Amino acid sequence: MDLTQQSADELAGTAEAVRQTYDRLRGRNLALDMTRGKPGPDQLDLADGILTIVGAGETDGAGGDDYRNYGLLAGIPEARAFFADYMGVSAEEVVVGGNSSLNLMYDAISGAMLHGMPGGNASWNDQVKDGGPIKFICPVPGYDRHFAICERLGIEMITVDMTPDGPDMDAVEVLVADDASVKGIWCVPKYSNPSGEVYADAVVDRLAAMTVAAPDFRVIWDNAYAVHHLGDGPATVKNLLDACKQAGDADRVLMFGSTSKITHAGAGIAVLAASETNVADALKKLFYANIGFDKINQLRHLRFFGDQAGLLAHMDKQAALIGPKFAAVDAALEQHLGGKGIATWKKPKGGYFVSVDVLDGCAADVIRLAGEAGVKLTPAGSTWPHGNDPHDRNIRLAPTFPGIAEVEQAMEVFCACVEMACVAKLQGGAT
Amino acid sequence: MDLTQQSADELAGTAEAVRQTYDRLRGRNLALDMTRGKPGPDQLDLADGILTIVGAGETDGAGGDDYRNYGLLAGIPEARAFFADYMGVSAEEVVVGGNSSLNLMYDAISGAMLHGMPGGNASWNDQVKDGGPIKFICPVPGYDRHFAICERLGIEMITVDMTPDGPDMDAVEVLVADDASVKGIWCVPKYSNPSGEVYADAVVDRLAAMTVAAPDFRVIWDNAYAVHHLGDGPATVKNLLDACKQAGDADRVLMFGSTSKITHAGAGIAVLAASETNVADALKKLFYANIGFDKINQLRHLRFFGDQAGLLAHMDKQAALIGPKFAAVDAALEQHLGGKGIATWKKPKGGYFVSVDVLDGCAADVIRLAGEAGVKLTPAGSTWPHGNDPHDRNIRLAPTFPGIAEVEQAMEVFCACVEMACVAKLQGGAT
Repeated sequence: MDLTQQSADELAGTAEAVRQTYDRLRGRNLALDMTRGKPGPDQLDLADGILTIVGAGETDGAGGDDYRNYGLLAGIPEARAFFADYMGVSAEEVVVGGNSSLNLMYDAISGAMLHGMPGGNASWNDQVKDGGPIKFICPVPGYDRHFAICERLGIEMITVDMTPDGPDMDAVEVLVADDASVKGIWCVPKYSNPSGEVYADAVVDRLAAMTVAAPDFRVIWDNAYAVHHLGDGPATVKNLLDACKQAGDADRVLMFGSTSKITHAGAGIAVLAASETNVADALKKLFYANIGFDKINQLRHLRFFGDQAGLLAHMDKQAALIGPKFAAVDAALEQHLGGKGIATWKKPKGGYFVSVDVLDGCAADVIRLAGEAGVKLTPAGSTWPHGNDPHDRNIRLAPTFPGIAEVEQAMEVFCACVEMACVAKLQGGAT
Repeated sequence: MDLTQQSADELAGTAEAVRQTYDRLRGRNLALDMTRGKPGPDQLDLADGILTIVGAGETDGAGGDDYRNYGLLAGIPEARAFFADYMGVSAEEVVVGGNSSLNLMYDAISGAMLHGMPGGNASWNDQVKDGGPIKFICPVPGYDRHFAICERLGIEMITVDMTPDGPDMDAVEVLVADDASVKGIWCVPKYSNPSGEVYADAVVDRLAAMTVAAPDFRVIWDNAYAVHHLGDGPATVKNLLDACKQAGDADRVLMFGSTSKITHAGAGIAVLAASETNVADALKKLFYANIGFDKINQLRHLRFFGDQAGLLAHMDKQAALIGPKFAAVDAALEQHLGGKGIATWKKPKGGYFVSVDVLDGCAADVIRLAGEAGVKLTPAGSTWPHGNDPHDRNIRLAPTFPGIAEVEQAMEVFCACVEMACVAKLQGGAT
């Protein structure tokens, strides 16, 4: 029963039925939150062993350094080696940072505004003075915190569409080819936020090989979900740094990772991986801002995982906890909205989100209705620059934090709201 | 025997004697490091209990929040309350940050360059475009990492002399009164780095009440050594935020603190304390750069100290370890250089350094000679902006990291080097 094909009378009946459903669900007085990609308490429990794994007398490094003291701005050697494996680079191509990869990304871009990037002949601020705004390419839908950094730093955002294989590279190649003020592109290469795409090898190759006007252009490669699968094991994405080296431009990419959604959110470890030139530049920028990151916490992570196999085994346990939540989301969408012609959605194999597109002009209404029924969703438009989805259709669901029963309750509400808003739209009225 | 009063013949004899001493000491093949203010291993041992003090099931806050998850950018409420007491402010006037107060200071100033400060009508970068460089007042001798931040951000540094009571306020008041490009002053109010002064109440009052041309002027109040005494208990410094409120300009000061030299260096907790307007501004700036700091580590600190009395008792134990090292430095200086007219030095009651002034033009020679004899000292000039001590006379000794026997050995070398360099100077030659 495709609602877009219903007659006015049929729509009136559908509207009345879904209104009754909605009122019944609202009567439950729910208070559920699906706004942010937060791990659930059971995921966090899996990492509780990290809390006490480094005790008194266990704080020296393999080289004899006392990790309780100052020093080692690039991270402890053991952690640089471990995260080199994790990121697919060499230890010299890694900076192991503090608890926030967002912070490393902000510092990279604000640092470029103030001091420039290797390859460029002036700070981005000075280039703005000479020639107008710095621009970044933003595949949409995307991650609100990436867009917020650009907005904050006065960087103009140019959207390109996501395809099932990654950003629309035809569009990207045109944008970067002639305009030297286009300085970067945001990429979440594996289980993209929010729509779950995994970048195809051809997209990686084109990002590495495309002709770029700006000598200080950077792909901001936020590999936030490198090992965050939902049960089938991590997908494989071609190594962009390797591809850039092969294409003759090793400095083109800054890759980021984090254990915030592996161990404890906010008490994890963030990583930058890049060419040695970019690493040296990052360390020079960091020198002025920091004596060094928390080496004890770096040590905790190493001891807790042991090796990459230990880390992967840990993520299998997480997948066993969150996989069923994503399955519940998909089942509810299928059951309540399947075949109705008013919504499409992704079936991600990893990451933290399910991206739903409803009829154009309906997303804000859906989110408002859900809120009034006690289900908090990410604000409408948040997956677009400046919080402005021009189609008003994309909604990001974050099912990891609530329990599975709560996910099911929330999805029942969500689906009713989608139907109510879209039927109203089809009727030409407002909810 | 004041060497400055010796005849040429007497000086020749002195030179020969000290050369023999130096050669003998160099023969010991020492490898000692007095460059940085690092805690000794025995100080760090005192805090080893913090490593495992928060275990599984102990990570919820008093309000029920799960501190293993995202959130609470301003810090956990318990830590805001604790560090409010520590800094002498209210909990709403505190941001509890990550592991680095230098990072909070860098972010404050680079954030002002990019986005301005409350009270100002434009970012400091935009003000530079309109009217030339931003300027900071730098009491000298001072802390090299403060000066490095200014140098990095293109901020012009204007030196003023330190007096036993703090910066020369007559000079400061003149500098800030008419020039709106003077945006700040660096202050280490207690046990100043490197010379150990404790700011007098009158200096605090004048900093609060002085007429300042720039509406976005800030006193950068790096209270790094608030409780770091050498045995007599912490000195008292008047509360600058209170004084600024009384003088009608609560937004004038940003106060910083850190537990890096209380618990484990690099794995401590940094704090910003300021007016609620400044705190709101800092949090807005932080929002773009961070999801939140490491709350588990904040919790560790609270559990480890218990209360302020616990923290103070901890610092008494540290004083018992480092007080004798400072006494050994003073004894060596007195024994080898006392009455010779070639060096003066401070007798700090806290902090991490002993500041020595030698005859003008001799500091670099002393440091070079010491290095050749296996004693690494902070590079000459490092206590001045751009590493350039115009008198070439100030040397910063950092006696906390080596053991006391090593401090004694290093000081014997140091004193011989001072005498050798200064005698050569008095002879009109070079070492």
